[in-house]
Amino acid sequence: MPRNLSGLALLLLLALLAGGCATHPVSEAPGLRATGDLGLVIERAAGRVALVETTGRTKLAEIEGLGDLSHASIVYSRDERYAYVFGRDGGLTKVDLLRPGIVRRIIQSGNSIGGAISQDGRLVAVSNYEPGGVKIFDADTLELKLDIPATYGSEGKRSKVVGLVDAPGRRFVFSLYDAGEIWIADLSDPAQPEVRRFRDIGRLPYDGLVTPDGRYYIAGLFGEDGLALLDLWNPDAGVRRILADYGRGNEKLPVYKMPHLEGWAMAGGYAFLPGVGHHEVLVIDRDTWTQVRRIPVHSQPVFVMGRPDGRHVWVNFAFPDNDTVQVIDVATLEVIHTFRPGKGVLHMEFTPRGEEVWVSVRDLDRVKVYDTQTFEQLTEIEADKPSGIFFTPRAHRIGL
Amino acid sequence: MPRNLSGLALLLLLALLAGGCATHPVSEAPGLRATGDLGLVIERAAGRVALVETTGRTKLAEIEGLGDLSHASIVYSRDERYAYVFGRDGGLTKVDLLRPGIVRRIIQSGNSIGGAISQDGRLVAVSNYEPGGVKIFDADTLELKLDIPATYGSEGKRSKVVGLVDAPGRRFVFSLYDAGEIWIADLSDPAQPEVRRFRDIGRLPYDGLVTPDGRYYIAGLFGEDGLALLDLWNPDAGVRRILADYGRGNEKLPVYKMPHLEGWAMAGGYAFLPGVGHHEVLVIDRDTWTQVRRIPVHSQPVFVMGRPDGRHVWVNFAFPDNDTVQVIDVATLEVIHTFRPGKGVLHMEFTPRGEEVWVSVRDLDRVKVYDTQTFEQLTEIEADKPSGIFFTPRAHRIGL
Repeated sequence: MPRNLSGLALLLLLALLAGGCATHPVSEAPGLRATGDLGLVIERAAGRVALVETTGRTKLAEIEGLGDLSHASIVYSRDERYAYVFGRDGGLTKVDLLRPGIVRRIIQSGNSIGGAISQDGRLVAVSNYEPGGVKIFDADTLELKLDIPATYGSEGKRSKVVGLVDAPGRRFVFSLYDAGEIWIADLSDPAQPEVRRFRDIGRLPYDGLVTPDGRYYIAGLFGEDGLALLDLWNPDAGVRRILADYGRGNEKLPVYKMPHLEGWAMAGGYAFLPGVGHHEVLVIDRDTWTQVRRIPVHSQPVFVMGRPDGRHVWVNFAFPDNDTVQVIDVATLEVIHTFRPGKGVLHMEFTPRGEEVWVSVRDLDRVKVYDTQTFEQLTEIEADKPSGIFFTPRAHRIGL
Repeated sequence: MPRNLSGLALLLLLALLAGGCATHPVSEAPGLRATGDLGLVIERAAGRVALVETTGRTKLAEIEGLGDLSHASIVYSRDERYAYVFGRDGGLTKVDLLRPGIVRRIIQSGNSIGGAISQDGRLVAVSNYEPGGVKIFDADTLELKLDIPATYGSEGKRSKVVGLVDAPGRRFVFSLYDAGEIWIADLSDPAQPEVRRFRDIGRLPYDGLVTPDGRYYIAGLFGEDGLALLDLWNPDAGVRRILADYGRGNEKLPVYKMPHLEGWAMAGGYAFLPGVGHHEVLVIDRDTWTQVRRIPVHSQPVFVMGRPDGRHVWVNFAFPDNDTVQVIDVATLEVIHTFRPGKGVLHMEFTPRGEEVWVSVRDLDRVKVYDTQTFEQLTEIEADKPSGIFFTPRAHRIGL
């Protein structure tokens, strides 16, 4: 159809003009299409993201020029059209999925880690190491709306910020690594933002998560054992310590990679946590936040992720055992499947209703797609050193 | 832009040719846009749906020619491009949201109620009253793939089918009203579908739901008190009865409208159920499925819906008190807000992260949009006798 062809040419031209960046359509450019089955795969070494779709399981385009994408993460606009890519170099890049390319890119700090989008989708927040703090941008224009320096102590020092998440009520919650604090920024009235500080929450919080219902914020501690828990329904109760033994413990095992918290599985009344240093997945009662079981696994777990229906939990591992994935049955709390996608399994992302999982296998330059019921491999997609995989339905979830 | 104008003309022409139906773009036709913030509002009396978007809170188009839309419901394709509208007249209509109009429409039975889409989005199922059974169609073409007559007893009678839902593992679960049975149809191998029957589950199941994790299927009983519960993780355990007192009870109060089950709120470890006949919302412990509290409310509840973060539960009521909405705080289990949107509040739909709620007010010909934190009305949208509201992120949820 001539219309499609001229439309395609126009789209490419627009993308090139708008972003000043290279876009390679792999098959057809998305153009007029729905966005519920799209996703981006981080190609870390190339500073690039691959645009994929999960219905036909194909790659649609490559978008270049995103800078240093080590430890990069992504959130989506509420309509799923735009991705906000948080790079390690302080870069915040707004990517258009329908006219694949960069809409806008700013370097907003010297060194950053992660971000979040507000409940109403109007604000994008980035947590920065250097200078330490949180910056909040207009989601449309990337104009700076608010700067929250993470100052602490009497000398006005600034802390690295980690574990930034969105929470209901147009709030952002984050942890101050050097200060040992958790802050809640309430932007329900953007003209009068309020910041509430919780001090002495534990030494060196290194990551944080919010439960899928947005109620509990939990920070992991690098400087001591245990976890810091804040009930966002009742912040007046303050931060309390849970799982006092959680961490490296007395044995001080070598820890090859601090496990991610974001991926924690919440399933069947339990939370599943990666053991730190230990070859174990911990099973926690979500009502009492106490440990009910330790499940022996292949090696040191990194991501412990619940299938969306909560029946299975998938686990990947730290180097040198990062070629393996294990699946735990939540009904029996036993490992029911072990397989080796290949060296460098860095991330896993379920389709939103859980029938498939996409697995990044860095050293094979492949994303492998599996049926979660039969464990059969359905296809694989070429990607350059793939790491994080992010599907657009994250736009509709709290804390992702 | 000339391209947009000619594209728009072409879209309209295509829609007219394809559907043989009238489409009225209200502002701009969607065309090239993302789909994560779209939704449809049933305009029951007019046999029409209104296409809306929740970012700017506007109506985009009206799509006509959908037949009898009393008690109509909608599911979405996994990419969110297409809606499948289940009408009362046995009509199954596939609607395109990007080129607004009817793609295909079939009359697949004489009288039907509700439908579901499989976990992988490839199959659409409809539950029929007459002739009683479930028909399963290809989601692309609406070609009939499988017909499951709901035969029971020794004489080959057919039962009305109700409470049809999807469940993980490419299954559909439904109840046989006349037979008092629950069936699981497993389509993980579509060439060899398997149907498992559970008999004597209780008299006259009139509706069903599956919990958001896809684990428990629950049928409400019209012929006796109590509810039928099936654990889909362990179907061998069979159907058991819970909440033996749930229902009209000994008093046989007049019941103006049997409450819907689909909207049951699951929040904070509880399930919230509409009392039948009574002016109460029942609070159920989800671990034991026993009642822990009765909350007095304004009148007979119809929908009892959890805000996506689970902090609040919103309730509407049966005639003649259907002008009122109440909000329950899950932390205190108390009504914290009562207001009157207007006569004929028929349905409520939260934006996926819960910051807003859209409320159908039939007798005002309006959909009203509220901020769920301040309860302030943000806007209202004209709609002809609006009933059900369905946003596209339902595509990514189990059991919706």
